[in-house]
Amino acid sequence: MAKKEKDFVKEITPMEEDFSRWYTDVIMKNELVDYSPVKGFMVIRPYGFALWEGIQKYADEKFKATGHKNMYFPLLIPESLLNKEKDHVEGFAPEVAWVTKGGSQELSEKLVIRPTSETIICHMYKKWLNSYRDLPYLYNQWCSVVRWEKSTRPFLRTSEFLWQEGHTLHETYEEAEEETLMILDIYKSVAEDLLAMPVIVGKKSEKEKFAGAFSTYTMEALMHDGQALQAGTSHNLGQHFTKAFDIKFQGRTGQEEYPYHTSWGISTRLIGGLIMVHSDNRGLVLPPMIAPTQVVIIPIAQKKEGVLEKANELYEQLKSAGVRVELDDSTENSPGWKFNQYEMKGYPIRIEIGPRDIENNQAVAVRRDKLEKETVLLDNFAEAISSMLDNMQNDLFEKAKAHREAHTYVVTDYEQYKKDVHEKPGFAKMMWCGDEECEAKLKEETGATIRCIPFEQEHLGDVCPICGKEAKHMIYVARAY
Amino acid sequence: MAKKEKDFVKEITPMEEDFSRWYTDVIMKNELVDYSPVKGFMVIRPYGFALWEGIQKYADEKFKATGHKNMYFPLLIPESLLNKEKDHVEGFAPEVAWVTKGGSQELSEKLVIRPTSETIICHMYKKWLNSYRDLPYLYNQWCSVVRWEKSTRPFLRTSEFLWQEGHTLHETYEEAEEETLMILDIYKSVAEDLLAMPVIVGKKSEKEKFAGAFSTYTMEALMHDGQALQAGTSHNLGQHFTKAFDIKFQGRTGQEEYPYHTSWGISTRLIGGLIMVHSDNRGLVLPPMIAPTQVVIIPIAQKKEGVLEKANELYEQLKSAGVRVELDDSTENSPGWKFNQYEMKGYPIRIEIGPRDIENNQAVAVRRDKLEKETVLLDNFAEAISSMLDNMQNDLFEKAKAHREAHTYVVTDYEQYKKDVHEKPGFAKMMWCGDEECEAKLKEETGATIRCIPFEQEHLGDVCPICGKEAKHMIYVARAY
Repeated sequence: MAKKEKDFVKEITPMEEDFSRWYTDVIMKNELVDYSPVKGFMVIRPYGFALWEGIQKYADEKFKATGHKNMYFPLLIPESLLNKEKDHVEGFAPEVAWVTKGGSQELSEKLVIRPTSETIICHMYKKWLNSYRDLPYLYNQWCSVVRWEKSTRPFLRTSEFLWQEGHTLHETYEEAEEETLMILDIYKSVAEDLLAMPVIVGKKSEKEKFAGAFSTYTMEALMHDGQALQAGTSHNLGQHFTKAFDIKFQGRTGQEEYPYHTSWGISTRLIGGLIMVHSDNRGLVLPPMIAPTQVVIIPIAQKKEGVLEKANELYEQLKSAGVRVELDDSTENSPGWKFNQYEMKGYPIRIEIGPRDIENNQAVAVRRDKLEKETVLLDNFAEAISSMLDNMQNDLFEKAKAHREAHTYVVTDYEQYKKDVHEKPGFAKMMWCGDEECEAKLKEETGATIRCIPFEQEHLGDVCPICGKEAKHMIYVARAY
Repeated sequence: MAKKEKDFVKEITPMEEDFSRWYTDVIMKNELVDYSPVKGFMVIRPYGFALWEGIQKYADEKFKATGHKNMYFPLLIPESLLNKEKDHVEGFAPEVAWVTKGGSQELSEKLVIRPTSETIICHMYKKWLNSYRDLPYLYNQWCSVVRWEKSTRPFLRTSEFLWQEGHTLHETYEEAEEETLMILDIYKSVAEDLLAMPVIVGKKSEKEKFAGAFSTYTMEALMHDGQALQAGTSHNLGQHFTKAFDIKFQGRTGQEEYPYHTSWGISTRLIGGLIMVHSDNRGLVLPPMIAPTQVVIIPIAQKKEGVLEKANELYEQLKSAGVRVELDDSTENSPGWKFNQYEMKGYPIRIEIGPRDIENNQAVAVRRDKLEKETVLLDNFAEAISSMLDNMQNDLFEKAKAHREAHTYVVTDYEQYKKDVHEKPGFAKMMWCGDEECEAKLKEETGATIRCIPFEQEHLGDVCPICGKEAKHMIYVARAY
């Protein structure tokens, strides 16, 4: 490896040395984001934004296929609306941005930049809703929101971030609950099928639920470093907001009723998860389904007769087969330099094709996750590469799942866990009495929080390891981003 | 027509009576937007948003096909950045929203919500750009912007609106100019090919150009009422911003150079134009290419044997052919009620299918723009309907063009024009000396402005009808939205 080629790797801090710097290095070297002049606000650059576009496309299709339509609600919300739901304002007021002046005029009422849109949407739903015949309301919006954060990290926690927020109304509690869980299923598919990121799905504790929710469901993923990431939440809001905003409809029997309400969101935070689940010390590793470019073809000794023609031929074959493919026939850089470049960028497969390969009717393919050379015959080439991409998608998921399993510990001895939490980071599965005091003690003494009460309950014992009282639930616990 | 059926039409004010109310009625009856609790800020409802999604999809594909990539820049811009380009700050400072507080903390520097993003983007481009090898920069973002407006009208002028803003950098003036004009061509295609809205393309006068631009190109459409609408602009910004922001690159010969810069945008305003160009006193008229639903099938006497089966069969045929189709087999409302409903909503074609039609192996099709019943044989049905949609798209464009021609007047006598401008609203074509004094006089005395100096120049005389001096350009003049 020539000096220049080594540099790519040298510029990324090994994750074992400093995980947080590794994460930032991978992001900055790949130009996924940059810091803007306003503290905590990020610019999402083209390669990073392409990942978001991939997530948007996948999720939006699923929302639409399940009857949801998109809308757009205003960026600014009057202070009085934010104040209407008590828990909600307590949760969000400390972290909103305030607009006090429009043009040259001081505003008579301060406005907040939406931290989330429940309040303004409820205000409008009250205007629109008449009868049970109008229900369900199945609406979503893609937008940015602002929450003033003290310490920020690209994708994971920024003062402005991009997301979608769904807001639905239903006739009955059961329908709202069904919607909440159906959306969680879509989110799970975004995480697992698109991003190859395995998630634990379950319910948040009362303390961890959304400000104003009746119940919050979540999906939680485990990162390389053993910390958890809340990757998407779906809230059954019950009638908390619909009563606070006096949204009523004429029910089937003629009387006025309050509808049941849900909201749900995934954000650019998923990109942070994607990086911390798959990438390595050479840079990004992108699952084929989300990779903006899936295959790069690099001609070897490209001045030799027939090489560029063959490279172009393979390019066309892959393109016709629906593969997102690039051909790098630039002459400025050596093939070795290119290999390193595309490894850093996480392109799932690189194909090398030179005179000797052509003689042998083959090409060399290197999967980004394995970094091993494989020979692929040029007969049925596109088919072979497509199936390699499928396998890689699958393998990445299985690898991430195996990593999670290897870092999931059953905890029955709380004193031992207080030591292990730092030495063996990962998910702790334990029983819980359901008491908020134990939850608070856990957080204070370990820095870990209840990530969720998983739908798939296991019986790990009869008592809560924290207080020794009777256990009610099995929970997942971890330190989290 | 039963009473109930008439009501739809009655609820829309005829445009001859009050054009402005007609416009608002069409929008509100169709639930395209609603007023939010913050003055001048609109909610875009699902049917309105679907129109925007159609525009986004069409334009985004064209941007990407010409090498542009999407990014996302922060919502908030420090005051000091806004102040860097003199003309720009003068143009925008009076109408921005100011954020003065984040969370509980007063900000040390006030922030503005982006009215447009030249300043923050230039700040970042300065950080990123090194060499001529990095150029061109071809980037775009889809977002909302805020400009505090005193009087607002749905889609046409609102304090927040959705748009895209492209921002590119180039090595030479010629390349920047080429980009600016290429984008104007894409915009023209959005207007004419997608929205069937004919436009005049040309250059803005010095007075009307974008704050900070070297030159601004525009497309101008004529509405039903004879007022013009600026439907999209593309700016060659020269080096105004790149010098103000000190953006430099190493040129081919080794010396530092300032790049040339463009920016360009289209917005939800296009939807206002779409409505005011095609719609009528029965409601919306949507060109098939942009219509969220292109065809609605309404079964007649649907309880009779075979009717619903046949309606479903036609539905499947159209769907397979790629037509966006709905089947309304609801039993709550009569076919007559449905006809009125879908006419109001502007669905391009409705298909009526009843027992007698089936016997005769035919269906009845009614084009929204003609409202005449046509018989269509059920053999090659999808093909026949697809070609009807194509014809309608074409006819709407031709009709709008004919309306524009009929309301375009050659003006050689300025005194006469001062009267005609009110009685014969439309485009005035006239010669102009190029003098800003004449431009100001024209605006003051007629309320009309120079919409553009069209690329297609005609020789209408030798002198400027306002001052009598030698004419330099042919211009389009109109009162405008």
